[in-house]
Amino acid sequence: MSIERFDIRTHSRNCAVDITAKVAEAVGKVTADDGIAVIYVPHTTAGITVNEGADPDVMRDVLTFLEKQVPQSGDYRHAEGNSDSHIKASLVGASTTVLISAGRLLLGTWQKIFFMEFDGPRDRHFFVKIISS
Amino acid sequence: MSIERFDIRTHSRNCAVDITAKVAEAVGKVTADDGIAVIYVPHTTAGITVNEGADPDVMRDVLTFLEKQVPQSGDYRHAEGNSDSHIKASLVGASTTVLISAGRLLLGTWQKIFFMEFDGPRDRHFFVKIISS
Amino acid sequence: MSIERFDIRTHSRNCAVDITAKVAEAVGKVTADDGIAVIYVPHTTAGITVNEGADPDVMRDVLTFLEKQVPQSGDYRHAEGNSDSHIKASLVGASTTVLISAGRLLLGTWQKIFFMEFDGPRDRHFFVKIISS
Repeated sequence: MSIERFDIRTHSRNCAVDITAKVAEAVGKVTADDGIAVIYVPHTTAGITVNEGADPDVMRDVLTFLEKQVPQSGDYRHAEGNSDSHIKASLVGASTTVLISAGRLLLGTWQKIFFMEFDGPRDRHFFVKIISS
Repeated sequence: MSIERFDIRTHSRNCAVDITAKVAEAVGKVTADDGIAVIYVPHTTAGITVNEGADPDVMRDVLTFLEKQVPQSGDYRHAEGNSDSHIKASLVGASTTVLISAGRLLLGTWQKIFFMEFDGPRDRHFFVKIISS
Repeated sequence: MSIERFDIRTHSRNCAVDITAKVAEAVGKVTADDGIAVIYVPHTTAGITVNEGADPDVMRDVLTFLEKQVPQSGDYRHAEGNSDSHIKASLVGASTTVLISAGRLLLGTWQKIFFMEFDGPRDRHFFVKIISS
């Protein structure tokens, strides 16, 4: 099965974009079986996470915490001024694997999949690769 | 191969439950080949990690560190009082992938797989999906 | 497809070793299709991450941040003096999944795959398991 690519636009330096519908679309296209979906970010200042999507304050709290823990200015040598963004990327991770049950995403009641922007606003993209069995 | 579900009960707000035997059981049921096992938590205030299981003080230290770094009270807007739990979930991650060699979990000498509870005590569950090839 | 093992030597307590070429070698050996590569560390004081490889200061900044956030001495009970290493291992994660497109690693322009040493210098190893479809 091929790899699906999705393009998105982020609108602030730090933000969480709900990409669940896009991942579900990729799953719906390629399998009706059980399997896994790997969501992968080819950027080094962004990540993927799964967390609560019902109350937007949850992701606001996650992002605010990360901004406080990993300040934009610090003991950094990388000259582009976005070392904090790279650090957050490694804390959150460049990929996440979710499960597929009978051709549908197996998420918990409150779970959504989020593209985590740490150095926006920018044009970004991510990939979804499905393995079924 | 189908997705295995396991139910567990956690006994404190923050704790690490060794689920290695359950994952091994799922692996033993479905494959004698090489492959991967994805362990997935459908909750937004829990996670999965692999770390040392020989000395219980290791996971105690990990949990104590997280409690200190991500305090229960802070600059949070989510009204349920568990923003710290959601933040920890995104730091640790909702899923982990481990390897299977000839039908057995390929773990390091000291490695165990832990269900990380950040908002217990609760009834919880997790899924194991195996892909072999 | 079998699991590939790679041995490496790390040279300081905390360091990031670029293992991209080794992972690419494993991919080149076993598939010309689309798929995924799971890179897995069987140690409990090391991890795997994907981040920028063009400017070495990026990984220097990531490691320096982690050393400051997770000090070597703290409220720890584990008697081996490396609780910080175990904590960092759970923050970064023992495995990472990357994508394979037509038999080649699908990495972003600046992305490299790093073995993250948190308790070196040591002889270490990691595994690469490829699933194609």
